[in-house]
Amino acid sequence: MEGLKNYISENKTRFLSELFDLLRIPSISSIESHKPDMYRAAEMWKKILLDAGADKAEVYETEGNPITYGEKIIDTSLPTVLVYAHMDVMPVDPIDLWDTDPFEPEVRDGKIFARGADDDKGQGFMHAKAFEFMVKSNQLPCNVKFLIEGEEEVGSVHLPKFCEENKELLKSDIILVSDTSMIAPGIPSITTGLRGLAYWQVEVTGPNRDLHSGLFGGAVANPINVLAKMIAQMTDEKGKVTIPGFYDDVIEVSEMERKKMAQAPFDEGNYKEALGVKELAGEEGYTTNERTGIRPSFDVCGIWGGYTGEGAKTVLPSKAYAKISSRLVPNQDHHKIAELFKSHFESIAPACVKVEVTILHGGQGYVCPIDLPAYRAAEKAYEYVFNRKPVPVRSGGSIPIISTFEEILGVKSVLMGFGLESDAIHSPNENYPLEQFYTGIEAIPHFYKYYAELMK
Amino acid sequence: MEGLKNYISENKTRFLSELFDLLRIPSISSIESHKPDMYRAAEMWKKILLDAGADKAEVYETEGNPITYGEKIIDTSLPTVLVYAHMDVMPVDPIDLWDTDPFEPEVRDGKIFARGADDDKGQGFMHAKAFEFMVKSNQLPCNVKFLIEGEEEVGSVHLPKFCEENKELLKSDIILVSDTSMIAPGIPSITTGLRGLAYWQVEVTGPNRDLHSGLFGGAVANPINVLAKMIAQMTDEKGKVTIPGFYDDVIEVSEMERKKMAQAPFDEGNYKEALGVKELAGEEGYTTNERTGIRPSFDVCGIWGGYTGEGAKTVLPSKAYAKISSRLVPNQDHHKIAELFKSHFESIAPACVKVEVTILHGGQGYVCPIDLPAYRAAEKAYEYVFNRKPVPVRSGGSIPIISTFEEILGVKSVLMGFGLESDAIHSPNENYPLEQFYTGIEAIPHFYKYYAELMK
Repeated sequence: MEGLKNYISENKTRFLSELFDLLRIPSISSIESHKPDMYRAAEMWKKILLDAGADKAEVYETEGNPITYGEKIIDTSLPTVLVYAHMDVMPVDPIDLWDTDPFEPEVRDGKIFARGADDDKGQGFMHAKAFEFMVKSNQLPCNVKFLIEGEEEVGSVHLPKFCEENKELLKSDIILVSDTSMIAPGIPSITTGLRGLAYWQVEVTGPNRDLHSGLFGGAVANPINVLAKMIAQMTDEKGKVTIPGFYDDVIEVSEMERKKMAQAPFDEGNYKEALGVKELAGEEGYTTNERTGIRPSFDVCGIWGGYTGEGAKTVLPSKAYAKISSRLVPNQDHHKIAELFKSHFESIAPACVKVEVTILHGGQGYVCPIDLPAYRAAEKAYEYVFNRKPVPVRSGGSIPIISTFEEILGVKSVLMGFGLESDAIHSPNENYPLEQFYTGIEAIPHFYKYYAELMK
Repeated sequence: MEGLKNYISENKTRFLSELFDLLRIPSISSIESHKPDMYRAAEMWKKILLDAGADKAEVYETEGNPITYGEKIIDTSLPTVLVYAHMDVMPVDPIDLWDTDPFEPEVRDGKIFARGADDDKGQGFMHAKAFEFMVKSNQLPCNVKFLIEGEEEVGSVHLPKFCEENKELLKSDIILVSDTSMIAPGIPSITTGLRGLAYWQVEVTGPNRDLHSGLFGGAVANPINVLAKMIAQMTDEKGKVTIPGFYDDVIEVSEMERKKMAQAPFDEGNYKEALGVKELAGEEGYTTNERTGIRPSFDVCGIWGGYTGEGAKTVLPSKAYAKISSRLVPNQDHHKIAELFKSHFESIAPACVKVEVTILHGGQGYVCPIDLPAYRAAEKAYEYVFNRKPVPVRSGGSIPIISTFEEILGVKSVLMGFGLESDAIHSPNENYPLEQFYTGIEAIPHFYKYYAELMK
């Protein structure tokens, strides 16, 4: 990629200035009154893509926020990279904790401070500028498509339908995404796995009304006591989930990948101190990063029932509730797990109560094989700019749209993120270091270069 | 008790008319604006006692509502009965569910309808009229003292101090109380036991803030999961409480008393149907009435933590809470049990969380031995009017002042109640059947007669 370093250094100021224009738009997708800002952001992205060298770019309407699509097809026989990013941002509350206006970007201490500076305007914009360089320098080695959505922060509600209806438009060989973080400054990583999710609400009903705990306590099953016992049974003393069949589809990660994962710097002492816990807890036989990355979990997200006010009111309540979720690993189907838990949990209910499980939500996990050409290209690109191989990381979180892409479009994604933990995404004083920004713009064309070579 | 039946029948109308005057006073102790009504009620009780034949009667100030005390001492060598009743009533909400004005008593279908008709103006007033008969007919066989308080419905807040400060005034051999119910119409019963209470709040702290359940779930202990496991451990599969030492002071009830208790009519089918449960649950080896009457319980009265709103928000919460209570049986000291649970619960906390138990409240249990002369006198009095022996009943509930009397005054109480379950105390349309009212007035002088005989 000849002339890349020079190009970046000569255009630094312009890149920032253009990014700042994008950051100034308060495109908060969760607040209805910002709808016009979503359109302004979509139109600006259209202009960004066209200016950068796209053959065409369009703003597509959805039933929700608009989507900007752009492309440059240089040769249909060459592979096609689909870049996915999002133009929407999180709300800015609590606003008083921001040192400067979240929508008036400012560089301080070598960092861009603004809502969206990292997530995902800053990271998305790197792709536009990398693309611009490749077009302007005539070094674009394959076709490129851009899909910039406006609802990522509210669950990508309308994107699956858009994908369903535009499969041909979005046809590609790989999806490239910069919306994740590196393990640490200078230590690149590639998120190779995302956990799926199953989410339930359970309702345990004892007597048909709240009872006097004196007159009835001891003789009538208390739904909170029962719920506690039922939840307690869901995991054993080794931290394993006891739902029959729960692990059936879990694929054990290879020793090689576990070794690579183990190379990620991780200080358990710091980790515990930051969380304020004396001890960690989880499934026996796995490290902390494995527990969150490659193993499923079972967490009660919420519980309630009976008297929860001040003081000592006695009651034997009629009902108790819990919201329960499992993070799932790739190959565990969330529909199947949802049903497994529901039938198991209902089946172990003692006859003294009624138990009803409602399946509330779910998402598939995702895994990017580390022998995929695109993964190897990303690995080499990172190595080029950081002088070290990126660590494959299994993230415990979920980016549901990544699994949806695979389901609907049949295409894998490579998560080539340049964020840092300190970027405070979703929080006050979100920022993005200039160094990450420029390094990203330098790394991305190398991804294209290596990817095109590997796909030959 | 010569002339008793005639006396009652000749004075029926007057008795009702006097009771109605008392019922018309809206002496709601929990509502501050009714304070003047508390004084009106106290003065009226003074007049009632003096008119009935008391040597003296006084209204005593407390830091809360007034107390009316009256007495007739006929011979200091004779035993003294202390009658306890309360002049205060519960609020009347929801007022629109009352068929008639709660403070304008009315007789319909042979029942007096009014707030306090049973609890405890109606039942308390029976004692005044029984006393009146004995005085007027010169058949009072012992000394009588009356203690009518104004805070029973708000926890008898100031009565313990009054007792402490007036031990000599209240000196007696037995306390006689009509503030409970019979098992069923025509089936008399005597409440021989009241359960005590220990009440805690527990707080389980995991990480120092709510965490992303994807990024941390499986590696960091979830305080709700932990709390559920800890609560689950508090009872075993036989329904026994597992706190070490919990049962140490529980006195097994004699086979004779269990047999007597078992005579109480009880239809498990109806009981379950009324509660809407398919099965009952409790400690193995005990009947339902034994489980609530003579065995301690362990109930979670409330639980909360994490996300409890609509839908499926994922979170690994920082904290989880529960309010937990045990109903205790007589001889289990609530202070001791409170400490036993606290130290046990805190000791089983896994190192991955912090657990804090706060003792919120407690009260001693109470038991009236069925071989006590006063119990046997009450038994005979009931037998006289109902032609059947009363059933000794252990109530699962608590009347804290009864234990307080025993602690401070060193005197046992006999709970000679004439209420019925259908009286709707504390509810709209509270009522008291005329038959129960007049039968009570007839039974009480027989208690005095048999009691004086047995104490000779």
